[in-house]
Parts: sequence; structure tokens; C-alpha cells
Amino acid sequence: MFKANEQQPEGFSVALCEALDNLAFNDQGLVPVIAQQHDSGEVLMFAWMNREAIEETVRTGRVCYYSRSRGTLWRKGESSGQVQYLKELRLDCDGDVLLAKVEQTGPACHTGRRACFYWKVEGDRVVIDRAPIIDPNELYS
Amino acid sequence: MFKANEQQPEGFSVALCEALDNLAFNDQGLVPVIAQQHDSGEVLMFAWMNREAIEETVRTGRVCYYSRSRGTLWRKGESSGQVQYLKELRLDCDGDVLLAKVEQTGPACHTGRRACFYWKVEGDRVVIDRAPIIDPNELYS
Repeated sequence: MFKANEQQPEGFSVALCEALDNLAFNDQGLVPVIAQQHDSGEVLMFAWMNREAIEETVRTGRVCYYSRSRGTLWRKGESSGQVQYLKELRLDCDGDVLLAKVEQTGPACHTGRRACFYWKVEGDRVVIDRAPIIDPNELYS
Repeated sequence: MFKANEQQPEGFSVALCEALDNLAFNDQGLVPVIAQQHDSGEVLMFAWMNREAIEETVRTGRVCYYSRSRGTLWRKGESSGQVQYLKELRLDCDGDVLLAKVEQTGPACHTGRRACFYWKVEGDRVVIDRAPIIDPNELYS
């Protein structure tokens, strides 16, 4: 479906259920999801969704991932309180990656930092260049 | 390494080679990479790197992925001419995802569009909302 329609013009559309039927889920039934703060453009985190998580996210407007470690749906913020509201959901050319533009309240990262990408390569070193905005002990207390 | 140091303060650093030794490559020896245009913040594409691709990218400043379909290093732009220059490379909290901030000349997507995420969910439809900036037939001629 994605390959067959890649030369379609702007405005071409398919049913959401048809697109989901054609997503290239991996052998665990998951697709990668990039979460980006909708207004600043900051890439906040990277996680996974199964079909159920995608459908719940679209239906409720609150981002729900699939936790590979727990093997269950993971409603972002359910333990930390730091929820994500969906502003826009995009699919890529191959139908195997999602981009979720979100409104993130507080930190997206379990370390209490705003975003997960706080290690920056500088020459032959990798440096932490972001501090937590909330103490992680407070986040999960 | 990543877990053990997640509460370190800003300015804490480790050697790049130590960080790469501790990256959580998947069973194919790959990590996912998010490519983001460094100034506009647009998420351009999503791909994979092995350790060799990461090292080449850092060394040369030109982004090199690993092509899963071809099973080889993929120097972005080698056939299309649309290269990516590395502006900043970041690692996430778990050491299993990279964020590459890049200068992308022309389209990042093989369809000739600027970015790969041109399918937008709108209600119960998914709509193409971006046109190619270069004819893909021209891109690979």
C-alpha cells in the first residue's frame, strides 16, 4: 500500500484502518515511534507501539506505547504523571515508523530530564549536557 | 554504563569508545537512528547504523547508515546525491537509540520528498500532505 502510493499527489488519502492493516510491524508486532514536542521540535523519546496502542492513542488523544520490558500497553505518564497528548500522528514512506507530535507535560525521560537524548558526542568524549527538571525519586514516588 | 551514570551531573563524560562498547545493539548489530534537520527541527527520516557506520559518521562528518536490505554500509546520498552532513550526534538514556542532527541537502526521502513522514492521520483517514521537491526519477538517474 505505501510503496504503491508513494507517487500520489498531495491530498491523496486512504482509510486509517487500511493504513494500519499495511503497517510493517516487526516480528513482535511492534513499530518504532519517534515522539517530538509539537511546537519546539525537540525529539523527546523513542518507543514502540503495537496496533492496539496506535488505535488507543488515536482514539483517546493520549499517547499509549507498548512496553517491551513489561509486555503490556504503557499509557505514558501512568506512573510518573508526565502524560503526552497527541497533536499529530504521521507515518513514513515505508509504513514502518511513526512520528508522534505531542504536548509533553514535564519530563519525557525516566531520569527526570525533559528528553532522553542527553548524551552528546563531543570529539572523542560523550558528555551529559542536560540536567533533570524533576528529581526522578520524586517522579516515581 | 548508561544506567549506572544516569544521575550524573551536566558535564560528566565518558570516552566515545566506551560509550560505543556499551551501546545496546540489537541481534543484527544495529541501533536505530533518528535524523533531524539541525536548524528547522524537522524529523527527516529513520534508519539504522552498525558500529562501523557510527564510527565512519563521526570520523568523516558525513552520515553513513547500514542498509538492512542491501546488507552493507549506506553512505547517504551515494546514489541520489542528497548527502547528510553531521552537525550533532546524541545518544539516549538507555544507549539504544541515536539522534543525528544533520544538514540535509535536498530531499531525505527516496520519493523525492524532503522528509519521509508525509502520511498524516486525519480522523479516520491518512492523507499525503507533502509533494516531492525533486522528481524521484531524476534523483536516481
